[in-house]
Amino acid sequence: MARNIQSLERAAAMLRLLAGGERRLGLSDIASSLGLAKGTAHGILRTLQQEGFVEQDDASGRYQLGAELLRLGTTYLDVHELRARALVWTDDLARSSGESVYLGVLHQQGVLIVHHVFRPDDSRQVLEIGAMQPLHSTALGKVLSAYDPVAHSEALEADRKAFTDRTVCEPDAFEHILDVTRARGYAADVEETWEGVASLAAPIHDRRRMPVGSVGITGAVERLCRDGELRPELIAAVRDCARAVSRDLGAGRF
Amino acid sequence: MARNIQSLERAAAMLRLLAGGERRLGLSDIASSLGLAKGTAHGILRTLQQEGFVEQDDASGRYQLGAELLRLGTTYLDVHELRARALVWTDDLARSSGESVYLGVLHQQGVLIVHHVFRPDDSRQVLEIGAMQPLHSTALGKVLSAYDPVAHSEALEADRKAFTDRTVCEPDAFEHILDVTRARGYAADVEETWEGVASLAAPIHDRRRMPVGSVGITGAVERLCRDGELRPELIAAVRDCARAVSRDLGAGRF
Repeated sequence: MARNIQSLERAAAMLRLLAGGERRLGLSDIASSLGLAKGTAHGILRTLQQEGFVEQDDASGRYQLGAELLRLGTTYLDVHELRARALVWTDDLARSSGESVYLGVLHQQGVLIVHHVFRPDDSRQVLEIGAMQPLHSTALGKVLSAYDPVAHSEALEADRKAFTDRTVCEPDAFEHILDVTRARGYAADVEETWEGVASLAAPIHDRRRMPVGSVGITGAVERLCRDGELRPELIAAVRDCARAVSRDLGAGRF
Repeated sequence: MARNIQSLERAAAMLRLLAGGERRLGLSDIASSLGLAKGTAHGILRTLQQEGFVEQDDASGRYQLGAELLRLGTTYLDVHELRARALVWTDDLARSSGESVYLGVLHQQGVLIVHHVFRPDDSRQVLEIGAMQPLHSTALGKVLSAYDPVAHSEALEADRKAFTDRTVCEPDAFEHILDVTRARGYAADVEETWEGVASLAAPIHDRRRMPVGSVGITGAVERLCRDGELRPELIAAVRDCARAVSRDLGAGRF
C-alpha cells in the first residue's frame, strides 16, 4: 500500500493548529508545535498562503486561516445531498415547533452542523453552520452514537467532558442512554450541554438504511419541556421531519 | 528563494477542480484534468480523504469535497476582524434599509461574501456567505476595483462577462465607472449582474487607510431606485455603515 504524502499531512496539521486555540500564530510557534524545522514549516506555509488557505497579517507577520477555505467549505455544502433534501423539511419543522432546527453529520470526534434554521421570531441569532457539537451530550450526537457504529466508537474513545451537572460521562450510563435512544427512536439533551437549554433529535437514514445524519430542535428548557418531560408534540414533529428527509433520500417506509 | 511544494499545489488544484463544474469526479477524470499519472493523483486523493478534505462516495467511487473544509471555513470567519467589527453595523443597515446586506472582500478574481444579513421580512432567503460575486458588475466588486489596486488589476485581467444588456465590459467604460465610484464614494449596480436587481456599496478602510472590504445592500430595482436613480436615503445609509465599520477598524475620521 502506498504511503500518504507527508507534506500534505503536515499542511493539514497546520490548518488544524490554526483552527484551534490561538488562531493567529507566528512561524516559530507553528514549527515548534508540529516538531518541524523552521525552513520546512515556512515552505509549507508559503505554499498554503499562495493557494489562499492561509493568510499572513502584514503588521505582525502571524499566520491565520485563509479565505479559500470559506469558498471551498461553502461549495462542500452546495453538493451535500442530505442537506439539499432536508432544506424544505427543516424549514417546516422550525415553523411548526417555533424552535431552531439543526442538521448534523458525524465529522471526526463530533457532530458537524451542516444546516441551521433560525427560530422563527425576531431575536438576534448566530448562524452555527460549520460549528461542531459533542457526540456524548447533545441530542444530535447521541442519535449518531446510537445508530452509527463509527460515531459510537468515536464517542466511547473521546474524552467525555461534563459540561453541566447533568452530563452523562460514565461509559455504562452512556451505553444505557444509547439503548434507550434506539428503543424509542429519538434522543434528548435536557441541560446536559448548556444550562437552560434542551434539545431533541431523531435519526435520518438513506436508501441503504444507513444512518447518515440527525435532525433536531434546540431551545429554552422552559419551552421544550413540560413537567420535566419533553413535550410529546415536539417529539412527534422532530420524528416526522427525520422520516420525511429519510424518505426523500430513498429510505423505505417500513 | 525556496520552491513551493508541488504535492501541496497539486492538492489545492484538485480541491479547486472539485469545487467547480461537475463537483463529483472519478479518479481518471481528476488525473487527466490535472495532467497527472493515476497513481500520483490517487496518492494525493487518499491523503486528502484521510484528512477530511475529500470524501469518496461508496456507491460510485467518485470524489467530492469533504466536511473538514466546512469546519475550517467557519473557523476562518470566526477570526475575521472586519466581519466581527461589522456584525452590529450590518444588522442596523438591514433594519434601516429594509434590504439584504452583504459584506465582501477580494478573493482571487472576485468578491468573497463574508457576511450576509437577510432582508428583515418573512420571505425565504438563501444564505450566501462563502459565495463569490464578479468584480466588474456588482456594486461590492466595483468598490473593491476602484479602491484596491490588486482588485483593480484582477478586474482588468478577468474575463468580464456580460450578464445582462447593461453590464459594462469594455475596459475604458469600466475605468470611467471606477473614476465615478472614487469621485462619489460609492458604487451602483442597476441590473448589471441580475435582471431586476440593484445593489449599492461603499468602501471600508482600516487604520492604515487601506481598503479592506466593501459593504452594501442588494434588492429589487423597484425598491432601491426611484425615477431610475438610487434612492438618496439608501446611499446615505450604506455610506454611514461603511464609515462606522471603518472607524471601528481604527480608520481616521478625516
